[in-house]
Amino acid sequence: MAMDFTGSLIDILKCIWRRVMSYIGFRESPSDNSRELAAKTEHPVKAFGWAARDESGFLSPFKFSRRATGENDVMFRVLYCGICHTDLHTLKNEWGISSYPMVPGHEIVGVVTEVGSKVEKFKVGDKVGVGCMVGSCHSCPSCANDLENYCPKMILTYNSTYHDGTPTYGGYSNIMVADENFVIRWPENLPLDSGAPLLCSGITTYSALKYFGLDGPGMHIGVVGLGGLGHVAVKFAKAFGAKVTVISTSPSKKDDAIVRLQADAFLVSHDKDKMQAGMETLDGIIDTVSAVHDLGPLIGLLKSQGVLVLLGIPNKPLEIPASLLLSSRKVVGGSAIGGIAETQEMIDFAANNKITADVEIIPMEYVNTAMERLAKGDVKFRFVIDIANTLKAT
Amino acid sequence: MAMDFTGSLIDILKCIWRRVMSYIGFRESPSDNSRELAAKTEHPVKAFGWAARDESGFLSPFKFSRRATGENDVMFRVLYCGICHTDLHTLKNEWGISSYPMVPGHEIVGVVTEVGSKVEKFKVGDKVGVGCMVGSCHSCPSCANDLENYCPKMILTYNSTYHDGTPTYGGYSNIMVADENFVIRWPENLPLDSGAPLLCSGITTYSALKYFGLDGPGMHIGVVGLGGLGHVAVKFAKAFGAKVTVISTSPSKKDDAIVRLQADAFLVSHDKDKMQAGMETLDGIIDTVSAVHDLGPLIGLLKSQGVLVLLGIPNKPLEIPASLLLSSRKVVGGSAIGGIAETQEMIDFAANNKITADVEIIPMEYVNTAMERLAKGDVKFRFVIDIANTLKAT
Repeated sequence: MAMDFTGSLIDILKCIWRRVMSYIGFRESPSDNSRELAAKTEHPVKAFGWAARDESGFLSPFKFSRRATGENDVMFRVLYCGICHTDLHTLKNEWGISSYPMVPGHEIVGVVTEVGSKVEKFKVGDKVGVGCMVGSCHSCPSCANDLENYCPKMILTYNSTYHDGTPTYGGYSNIMVADENFVIRWPENLPLDSGAPLLCSGITTYSALKYFGLDGPGMHIGVVGLGGLGHVAVKFAKAFGAKVTVISTSPSKKDDAIVRLQADAFLVSHDKDKMQAGMETLDGIIDTVSAVHDLGPLIGLLKSQGVLVLLGIPNKPLEIPASLLLSSRKVVGGSAIGGIAETQEMIDFAANNKITADVEIIPMEYVNTAMERLAKGDVKFRFVIDIANTLKAT
Repeated sequence: MAMDFTGSLIDILKCIWRRVMSYIGFRESPSDNSRELAAKTEHPVKAFGWAARDESGFLSPFKFSRRATGENDVMFRVLYCGICHTDLHTLKNEWGISSYPMVPGHEIVGVVTEVGSKVEKFKVGDKVGVGCMVGSCHSCPSCANDLENYCPKMILTYNSTYHDGTPTYGGYSNIMVADENFVIRWPENLPLDSGAPLLCSGITTYSALKYFGLDGPGMHIGVVGLGGLGHVAVKFAKAFGAKVTVISTSPSKKDDAIVRLQADAFLVSHDKDKMQAGMETLDGIIDTVSAVHDLGPLIGLLKSQGVLVLLGIPNKPLEIPASLLLSSRKVVGGSAIGGIAETQEMIDFAANNKITADVEIIPMEYVNTAMERLAKGDVKFRFVIDIANTLKAT
């Protein structure tokens, strides 16, 4: 079972939209030309950040503009922004859908500097967060059910376009403007730096555990892959009262799993004896792996009626032995981030349960090195950029 | 999308146990020797039926014995027995797990002739049915939850062994003896002949629709494959108040779907335009196909949060594009028959809603011809043997 830990949020989203759209014969809109035109549109608010100009993905200082604070908008000064593996994929145009210049970042926290006239939930000085999306259609069944993340017209925080065709820029920047409906209230007792990654990895794992009924106390939950998503999945599952078994290809992850994250057990996925001994013991599995891997042994670990939730998107279809599903009514499902209301719920839950990501705080100028290390999996478990103290308007 | 309609119940079960057991390194028990010995055990009650003696699958008259009616047993005279596609597979040892002589049949209805001293639910003269299983362990979590069908020690109605090691023989025979816990009460107003197949195809589809929440009025349900399982799935889904779309590789099935079964719509699975027009319209799909087929287009037909339920077991793993699951939190699940309590519920529901299988009643001596026709899919939709009037003790 070959695994890596590149699976994460916009990985999910970008890849999904692209594949689904191409599947149903959609063409991207607006056209490249109109996007190029829109990208040149000058907004009234001067901003700066770090952007990639091409597929090298190399980031460097970049001046751009953001819209003025609209009546439903919140403007905030960015304090921290997490680095998601998706940022790396997107910077390098690995999915063929990147537009440049690109300011990445969708794990953004900061402090409100201005609010629009109709904003009700926020005031100047509030601490806030913006995650993976900044808009949706507000009229589809998904939006009606607080599932903006599944809205076909959902607008991603960067490398996407607003309804007016202008590009979205992410959180590797000094300021952010967003519709208050996509802004998260930040609890006083939740650290801003190590809390930032929860806006992506937190909601992705929390929502999966909740939706698939894997949040009951006393459950036995498996977490496959111990990266940015996986290590947070362990923390939420533990907070829900579960016994947690981490499953990994790397025996070297054992200490991280057991000592650092206090998982209850650790399974090396290619240890056949141990995997066999674990058969039919898990109520559910959160599978964060993006590489193609064998689902059979994982399904085998599930009890009757167990559920395997995929959070990563391998670049080829996964094989499912139908017999293993039928034999005890198991299911394989997928989940992608979560809606805004649930993101708020998750952030509040994290604050109440003292859950944060394990992070390495870096200065802005370290970001290209951080990307190189991220590509090698050399981080425990998330980089977070100290924007406020290190992003200089050069 | 290549499909056939060989998917059915014991198909499911036999194949499952074999694969799961081999997966976890189990060896079949009892051993061939002890089974052979047990097969020669003479029980006190003389019985006769039709059996296959070898992998030719050719059926001919056969004298054997059944146990005396135990204190918890019900003995009944068999009136009708349905022919499931599984019977054909098993007769010909297509899964390599057949034992001979084999008396097939797991859609058995009849009239009670004797009850044991502790039997409470039945009396002489009652009409009853026995489906796909005749025993389980009564102590595992599945049994505790009325899911004997998922008990690892579940005893199949034929080609299996009782706890004492003696072989089970099915319903192509004059009499049946079974533990009352595995006997179904037959409603007065449910025809015996066309109702018999519900003990397999009925519970398989009913249980799948119920468990996966596809039984709500106003839902839009897809049924893939219009064979023994599929045609009954259409009837149950309609009775639950759903709009039903039949999906098939064969345009020729349209009249059967729309006119005969009153499905609301029909989709030819290789008609890309129609399939695309149907994207994101179904709440759930019951997939009865046993051949390897492409799940992508089917998952594409599902709305957000939709579920694809597999009831057939292809001989190779099926490919699942993870992106299609993640894009809108869809799931792929499996289901195999149902527990005894739910089988009773299904039979009562069928009686109240006038649901039966579409059947062709045949005499016992026609059975080998019926098997030939079944192999070609030449039946609408189930053969049922008129045991009482045509099985002669020659």
